[in-house]
Amino acid sequence: MNKIFFTPGPSALYFTVEQHIKEALKNNIPSISHRSKQYVQMHQETVNALRQLLNLPEGYQIGFTSSATEIWERMAENLIDNNSYHFVNGSFSEKFYKTAKDLGKNAILDEAVPGSNHDLTQATIPDEVELIGVVQNETSTGAMLPVADIEALRKNNPDKLLVVDSVSSLPVTKYDFSQLDSLYFSVQKCFGLPAGLGVWIYNERCLEKAQKLKEAGKYHETYNGLLSIDKFAQKHQTSCTPNVLNIYLLGKVVQDMLNKGIDQIRNEAIYKSTLIYDLFEKHEKLSPFVSEKKFRSLTVGVGQVEGGAEPLMSALADKGMQVGSGYGPFKGQHIRIASFPTHSKEQVEMLVDTINALDF
Amino acid sequence: MNKIFFTPGPSALYFTVEQHIKEALKNNIPSISHRSKQYVQMHQETVNALRQLLNLPEGYQIGFTSSATEIWERMAENLIDNNSYHFVNGSFSEKFYKTAKDLGKNAILDEAVPGSNHDLTQATIPDEVELIGVVQNETSTGAMLPVADIEALRKNNPDKLLVVDSVSSLPVTKYDFSQLDSLYFSVQKCFGLPAGLGVWIYNERCLEKAQKLKEAGKYHETYNGLLSIDKFAQKHQTSCTPNVLNIYLLGKVVQDMLNKGIDQIRNEAIYKSTLIYDLFEKHEKLSPFVSEKKFRSLTVGVGQVEGGAEPLMSALADKGMQVGSGYGPFKGQHIRIASFPTHSKEQVEMLVDTINALDF
Repeated sequence: MNKIFFTPGPSALYFTVEQHIKEALKNNIPSISHRSKQYVQMHQETVNALRQLLNLPEGYQIGFTSSATEIWERMAENLIDNNSYHFVNGSFSEKFYKTAKDLGKNAILDEAVPGSNHDLTQATIPDEVELIGVVQNETSTGAMLPVADIEALRKNNPDKLLVVDSVSSLPVTKYDFSQLDSLYFSVQKCFGLPAGLGVWIYNERCLEKAQKLKEAGKYHETYNGLLSIDKFAQKHQTSCTPNVLNIYLLGKVVQDMLNKGIDQIRNEAIYKSTLIYDLFEKHEKLSPFVSEKKFRSLTVGVGQVEGGAEPLMSALADKGMQVGSGYGPFKGQHIRIASFPTHSKEQVEMLVDTINALDF
Repeated sequence: MNKIFFTPGPSALYFTVEQHIKEALKNNIPSISHRSKQYVQMHQETVNALRQLLNLPEGYQIGFTSSATEIWERMAENLIDNNSYHFVNGSFSEKFYKTAKDLGKNAILDEAVPGSNHDLTQATIPDEVELIGVVQNETSTGAMLPVADIEALRKNNPDKLLVVDSVSSLPVTKYDFSQLDSLYFSVQKCFGLPAGLGVWIYNERCLEKAQKLKEAGKYHETYNGLLSIDKFAQKHQTSCTPNVLNIYLLGKVVQDMLNKGIDQIRNEAIYKSTLIYDLFEKHEKLSPFVSEKKFRSLTVGVGQVEGGAEPLMSALADKGMQVGSGYGPFKGQHIRIASFPTHSKEQVEMLVDTINALDF
């Protein structure tokens, strides 16, 4: 059966990926050297397309890692001397906090109730904090931070590095990148690629911080430390043999998104998420986990299922539709529905209609 | 043109990979969750096939990273308190040495002339050394260490961890794994997969060392520290979202190799490398870079080209055959020819015949 994955990552492949993989094989992309001219040109094309899609300003660079998890580690090593501050409202925001703590940093945990969010506009951050971490779209709970709130946080704390986890919301969320210092995502969510590639956007302030800590002997520089990533990024390369195929595919998918138009992708995201929250509000056995409307994710809708999620998930799987289970403590109670750019309006309509017609 | 890549990694894909990618797409492998039962079963199948192919004994485990480069870093962090010893005879053996040094270890460099090798049977290692690094097949120079010499080194230094880089020789080289503590490789060489996956084999002694250093507070544990890798490996999982597609493809290719028979793969490697060295010895403009026969790689043949490598490489490219250039300081002087399991005897014969017929 041709199953549709509405799971929040890995998810359905972007609908053009299969064709791009065939082209990649035909053109021997997996066999080219990552030091060859052909690679350098391909790498640059991917980065340029991404810059255009995100409207990335000068002074912001793009580096590649193996995962967003790796980026947490590299940030904690290279961008924090002692003190970091973490807004935590679910499993993924907590993981960055834990990474910083495990690496010996004085990481401050500021927890909100899962399914809700902090009021960033009113946050008071201690003076000694060097880096603030926020998760714009918490994949485990479906809580999304308004960009305006993130910008207010930055305005109130201009001397601290602000890093944004946009793992499951880019490119749907629209940023003014000049209002943040670093942003990262992985490709198996909204970009609909096979897993195994993290994308790290960073600005000059990040590089200066990493340089300063390096000169003070605060960390050991390694192949994927930020300064090494940046050194190779300037040459349109990576510090080690990367996931070449995925870097190629990312460029192709971003080009497809440019051709479709980012505004249309964003408008469709609003339409699809409206359908999902409408379902959660009207169905007698479902309710939205995120109660405050302004915090509801446009890409990952999380619903509480009365009596447990298993019967609904099984019934959907029987009909060829796979939704995500609740994450961590919410496994069994929640369903998570991704409405990523690859999920068409018609697919989401079909999913909603199917749930409404089901007896579970 | 259907180009044949004789480059020493990334190289030609294993000849069955394209079909396996199609199957993977059909079966939604890139969309499955890395915490699902389906993933766990697939991961276990890959590991079990690899255990069988390598005849891996009990007490040796298999973990996945993003690259062999990452394994250098993790080994230096988790397996060395102060002192390591590195037999270096080319760029890749030197990179592990540099990684350990960059991470603040007292890494001892023991250099041999590139294109040759140390006599490991006569090596004297200082008492304080905790870990010895050898590269069984130095991809940059084509110098290969006899397994018997590696075993002698271990016999003479039984209390030190012996870690073997077999990046571009596994599964052609046959090991008695009980005579080493750790071995690693990446999949874009002899296994003929797209790049983006490192494979780390380690034994109980490695785990004990990592545990001891952890308890002494010698490193910060992170997601891909050895103990974390092992914790997840025991559950047939990885610590972060991995390159799921490559782990699937590795299992399929290893199964194909099991069906073909590892002895046949090894016998063909001898035949193909004999053709290549015969060419280097008989051709008036070519000579083998590795002069001592016992040190000649079975998988990467490196030849010196009188008058420079460029004309030969270009002429071959025009005929649809891509050989590797010299590495680092030897760029322009050498060609490197991979004869990996995917390269058929007929392909190598054709390459040799073509070079013999060329005027360069």
